Amino acid sequence: MKYKLTIAYDGTHYCGWQRQPNGISIQALLEQAISTIIRSPTTVVGSGRTDAGVHAKGQVAHFIAEPIDTKRLLKSINGLLPADIRVLAIEEAPEEFHARYSAVSKEYHYHLHLDPMIDPFKRLYSYHYHGKLDVKLLTSTAKYFVGTHDFTSFANIGSSTKDSVRTIKRLDVCKEEGGIRLEFEGEGFLYKMVRNITGALLFVARGKISPEEILSIFAAKDRRKAPPAAPPHGLFLIQVRY
Amino acid sequence: MKYKLTIAYDGTHYCGWQRQPNGISIQALLEQAISTIIRSPTTVVGSGRTDAGVHAKGQVAHFIAEPIDTKRLLKSINGLLPADIRVLAIEEAPEEFHARYSAVSKEYHYHLHLDPMIDPFKRLYSYHYHGKLDVKLLTSTAKYFVGTHDFTSFANIGSSTKDSVRTIKRLDVCKEEGGIRLEFEGEGFLYKMVRNITGALLFVARGKISPEEILSIFAAKDRRKAPPAAPPHGLFLIQVRY
Repeated sequence: MKYKLTIAYDGTHYCGWQRQPNGISIQALLEQAISTIIRSPTTVVGSGRTDAGVHAKGQVAHFIAEPIDTKRLLKSINGLLPADIRVLAIEEAPEEFHARYSAVSKEYHYHLHLDPMIDPFKRLYSYHYHGKLDVKLLTSTAKYFVGTHDFTSFANIGSSTKDSVRTIKRLDVCKEEGGIRLEFEGEGFLYKMVRNITGALLFVARGKISPEEILSIFAAKDRRKAPPAAPPHGLFLIQVRY
Repeated sequence: MKYKLTIAYDGTHYCGWQRQPNGISIQALLEQAISTIIRSPTTVVGSGRTDAGVHAKGQVAHFIAEPIDTKRLLKSINGLLPADIRVLAIEEAPEEFHARYSAVSKEYHYHLHLDPMIDPFKRLYSYHYHGKLDVKLLTSTAKYFVGTHDFTSFANIGSSTKDSVRTIKRLDVCKEEGGIRLEFEGEGFLYKMVRNITGALLFVARGKISPEEILSIFAAKDRRKAPPAAPPHGLFLIQVRY
């Protein structure tokens, strides 16, 4: 049987989603918990990786196992996992379901905290930028990223695909208490693409590059021509749609 | 000159407000930062202590020093403090001001998260109670604590005062996302009083004691007759009024 997991996690203390030799990953902890409970080594396949410090409210993964009582498994898994990782749901999935390849769109939010002072309660969940920032310009520049583009300049090496054309359906800038939230929705994102786009928008909003330079960065198809990525802790994987 | 500090902190990683031999306290870090900057050993006097794990959005403290540029000091202090402690404001205060004795009222909030599952992003900032809880009964029982009472049964040893009569002006139960928030406002609180009252209200709401038993617990004037305290991480010191 194939099973679909929906997972939330505070990424602060982890090396990211993906299993790694030197660090504790969400994937490894999930695999350990499930393997222990069903007494059989189990691989958990995620919808995509999230980096160290990146959070998730709706990561999705799948695994294959003998038929199990999903309600009991949900309780047991959360009993074994630390409190900063919660499996929110376990459902039976059709045989052809694949957490990564069946995904039709993903939603990410990036939180920017713009008050002059760090908020102790937001410090791990939003990027505190305390310089001058033109939010209006940031908002109007966001439109350059919406639609279908070759995102080579906004993808780090490590993307497992060679095709760098992606479609961003929506990039909304929403006000929230103490700052703004960038909402990204797209069919798929390349490695570090959301943080790289956020970093580029910050460069525009800080006056370090003009909005039009985004076009030449796109055209260069060279990651080295683009501004640095925004830090990981402002980023949340909100939802994966199938 | 006397200076008044307003401070916010995430209490997760500290042994509490008060200086202690075995642990890092908010008070000690503030004293270190100020003493370093003004190059003179300085004592910081708080409005009251908060325990390990308790948070603050508006703790108040004072210290005495030679006249200083408060704007520059604010920047310097926050530059030396870790990001989970922020001095929000520094103001000159009249000579007779005392962070503890001049306080006329304090406001505390206690957050209870009542969803079946722990929220990874609330786990350090609210108490997750996953059993059956009669919120209506909790709300109606809260009235027993409002007004002027001898709170001996709801105070831990360690209160520096012998008079255990205190006045609670307000104890409101407010709905919030995923749970409820208990808002306490009073002229002053004894040691662990807010957590002890919350613990007693939880016992009533869980059906472990009747609402009327609160009256006999008050009458006993004995801490051992009352239910255990609610855990520290749900508690926030919101504001101290002068």
